[in-house]
Amino acid sequence: MESAFPTAARLGLHVLLYSSLLLNALFLAHHFLSAPPAPSPLLSEADNGGGGGALSWALRAARDAESVAAAGCSGHGRVFLDGIVGQDGRPGCECNTCFEGPDCSVRTPDCTVDADSGDPMFLEPYWMQHAEASAVVVSGWHRMSYRTTDGLFQSVELERCIRRLHAAVGNAVADDKQIVFATGSMQLINALVYALSPDSNSGSTASVVATTPYYPAYRTQIVLFDSREYRWAGNTSMWAKASGNSTTKEDVIEFVTSPNNPDAVLHQPVVGGSSAILDHAYFWPHFTHIPAPSNEDVMLFTTSKLSGHASSRFGWALIRDEKVAKRVNNYILQNTMGTSRDTQLRMLSVFKAILANLHGKEDIFAFGHDVMTAKWRKLGAVVSRSRRISLQNIPPQYCTYFDKIREPSPAYAWVKCEREEDSDCSDVLLKAKIITRSGVWNDASSRYTRISLIKSQDDFDLLLERITEFVDAELTAAGSNSM
Amino acid sequence: MESAFPTAARLGLHVLLYSSLLLNALFLAHHFLSAPPAPSPLLSEADNGGGGGALSWALRAARDAESVAAAGCSGHGRVFLDGIVGQDGRPGCECNTCFEGPDCSVRTPDCTVDADSGDPMFLEPYWMQHAEASAVVVSGWHRMSYRTTDGLFQSVELERCIRRLHAAVGNAVADDKQIVFATGSMQLINALVYALSPDSNSGSTASVVATTPYYPAYRTQIVLFDSREYRWAGNTSMWAKASGNSTTKEDVIEFVTSPNNPDAVLHQPVVGGSSAILDHAYFWPHFTHIPAPSNEDVMLFTTSKLSGHASSRFGWALIRDEKVAKRVNNYILQNTMGTSRDTQLRMLSVFKAILANLHGKEDIFAFGHDVMTAKWRKLGAVVSRSRRISLQNIPPQYCTYFDKIREPSPAYAWVKCEREEDSDCSDVLLKAKIITRSGVWNDASSRYTRISLIKSQDDFDLLLERITEFVDAELTAAGSNSM
Repeated sequence: MESAFPTAARLGLHVLLYSSLLLNALFLAHHFLSAPPAPSPLLSEADNGGGGGALSWALRAARDAESVAAAGCSGHGRVFLDGIVGQDGRPGCECNTCFEGPDCSVRTPDCTVDADSGDPMFLEPYWMQHAEASAVVVSGWHRMSYRTTDGLFQSVELERCIRRLHAAVGNAVADDKQIVFATGSMQLINALVYALSPDSNSGSTASVVATTPYYPAYRTQIVLFDSREYRWAGNTSMWAKASGNSTTKEDVIEFVTSPNNPDAVLHQPVVGGSSAILDHAYFWPHFTHIPAPSNEDVMLFTTSKLSGHASSRFGWALIRDEKVAKRVNNYILQNTMGTSRDTQLRMLSVFKAILANLHGKEDIFAFGHDVMTAKWRKLGAVVSRSRRISLQNIPPQYCTYFDKIREPSPAYAWVKCEREEDSDCSDVLLKAKIITRSGVWNDASSRYTRISLIKSQDDFDLLLERITEFVDAELTAAGSNSM
Repeated sequence: MESAFPTAARLGLHVLLYSSLLLNALFLAHHFLSAPPAPSPLLSEADNGGGGGALSWALRAARDAESVAAAGCSGHGRVFLDGIVGQDGRPGCECNTCFEGPDCSVRTPDCTVDADSGDPMFLEPYWMQHAEASAVVVSGWHRMSYRTTDGLFQSVELERCIRRLHAAVGNAVADDKQIVFATGSMQLINALVYALSPDSNSGSTASVVATTPYYPAYRTQIVLFDSREYRWAGNTSMWAKASGNSTTKEDVIEFVTSPNNPDAVLHQPVVGGSSAILDHAYFWPHFTHIPAPSNEDVMLFTTSKLSGHASSRFGWALIRDEKVAKRVNNYILQNTMGTSRDTQLRMLSVFKAILANLHGKEDIFAFGHDVMTAKWRKLGAVVSRSRRISLQNIPPQYCTYFDKIREPSPAYAWVKCEREEDSDCSDVLLKAKIITRSGVWNDASSRYTRISLIKSQDDFDLLLERITEFVDAELTAAGSNSM
């Protein structure tokens, strides 16, 4: 028989062994559960990281990113890596409009809702839900050279993704076109007008026109750059009156936004024989039905309204004529030497994530369409009770992408004030604490104003509150008048 | 006495225990050695990642980045995340000029060296050595909005870093200036000329000038944009001849590159009373001595020549007059709606890494100066044996940043062909298999040509080979003539 001491020792040995084995199990579980060999779009699993999950130089950046992402900000804001650093040495919450406080939990009393800008924040939740697929690590030495994979300034892989996306969505024929990248489609406005204008030695000046209500940047850019080769000639009806039959059509450059910003109507060029620039920023299935692929000579697109990455400043043109594409490229080269290659890397992740989910249950267009139709339906229900304001009418239409009749989901409401005395519609809504963009900006009547629906859900919820208050006040007043 | 069996069992228990303890120790060692709680510039250690190293959504991106970074490409190339994907589904090596093969190990026979572009690849090794500090994870939802921390388009934290850097380096007085970000300093050339030109209603036209030899983009941009408010008026001496006393000085905008591209000379404006734009792209201690902080009204800088990130397209202007800054901002807004916020995030990491190492043994300027002085010394030694070509003379000078007399380290060699028959110097060198940039581009004589020294070490080593062959051939010929 053994003494008490050895028994206790043996018991202790067992406790130690089982503790140690348990610790082993915990370490193993921690190791494999917390650092799974995630499916990589780039690499085969066998090559994945070299050493079963051990990271070296990228770990610090990955931790920093996950740490700021973990901040909740009460669901009304978020922390960014490059946010303004507070007294605690860390970036703080950046709150949605009308929310405040260190964790964005406080509703700003009596807040004026901002429905002015076309900030595409409605897609932010999509990317939060697809965090793994869309994240990208930029190393300090990533692609420092001016030259990238096309020998110049454009990523060949990104160009391939863009072509695949147009083909899969069916919104544009890209096969027989050149693709030119730019720092947002903004940069392409003047670049294309330059490229389509007569040569500086010809002595002639192109007239640049658009049909009311049009996107104001066409006018403001052409006026700002004030080139000798082209000039802003006003809206198409003004231009037709002023020019009579005197101007040769070859010297007219027409901007056509389709679907239109602000009113979501699909448009074709109206000046026959002109050079048309089709701005298809919103020609994606979350905003509009796609009747057929567009196949114009010059077309404009932007990630701002496709994926919601407005801040990345990435747009592209599809151009049929090689000489025109060359002139645009030369302009972009002289202006900015191409668009940021950091952004091109990020956009590659974003495009790959979009492509991987097309027509599946995580389809970005289905997500966006759901969000936008819900908004349009709710807004329409409130406004239909009013006789003071009205919205544009958009019928449900067959969409080739979804292969069904789809409900309307415009990016903007184009609001008309119906009362004679409400001649400044944006001012009427401002008094109801809603900031909108007056139709004057679109060269249209001030009786119209634009309400943005593509901002965050918070922005929309508050907008709906204010609009409801506005319509309720109208009905109450009408009720007391009729009494 | 115990039986053999229990003893064996107890021995087994011990072995198991020690194995288990060893395994624990290994797990612990692995955990802490492979995933150390790295010093984070952003976060305190206690908050570092939540769970001691466990990553979730950022892990895949971090692994992809480390995997491509691990490819050696024989030291003559590298793999990028967005490289062209080969048949194996992975991006391949992108080789330095004159190297080829799947792993860049093959020297291209009889290769022509490219010393043309100002591609700042000499700093790539610095960032490879500072991988952890400079890496950044961009989440899919990172800062999608048009608006950033200044309420418009510029990161407040990045602006703070830029001000701290100018103060610490002592190359510019930034305190009393506005900072305007742009898509490379390229975009600022025309933006500043626009901002300094008379109003479009004034009817007058500004003359834009520069002193030969000047950076050609000043001319090419002004000619391309062809605005009614300003025009390219040639080099300062041509302009002085043509204008006599007739042009009011207020309508002259003078570009002054200091140190100059191509010849590295520090310059001041020469047209008294003009609006001067000081292009300080190269006014950093790796390229030049810093005699004193520059304090001009309008100054230009770019990360391309500071950190070597040419592809990020990030530059900034320091502007004293608020009205001028406002006009530049308006131009940038109309042209591109600011510069990529993805790039601003990356630049924040880069600037923080630079700032953290100033005056230490990992100082980027000390690193860059070492690389560039070595190149200049080697090139000088070979060319000094020649009577056919010569280099500009740059004396050692006192530098306030290094607080010592420093050896010259120009970005470019400004080569002169001395023989009367060698009137096209770039052609002379091209015949020796060296691509350079003819002085004609700088509005100078074709007797001069620019050799870039800021490209990769491979590019320089090959350049030195070719130049040595060229000089040896001259000496051999001279030797046989004198025999």
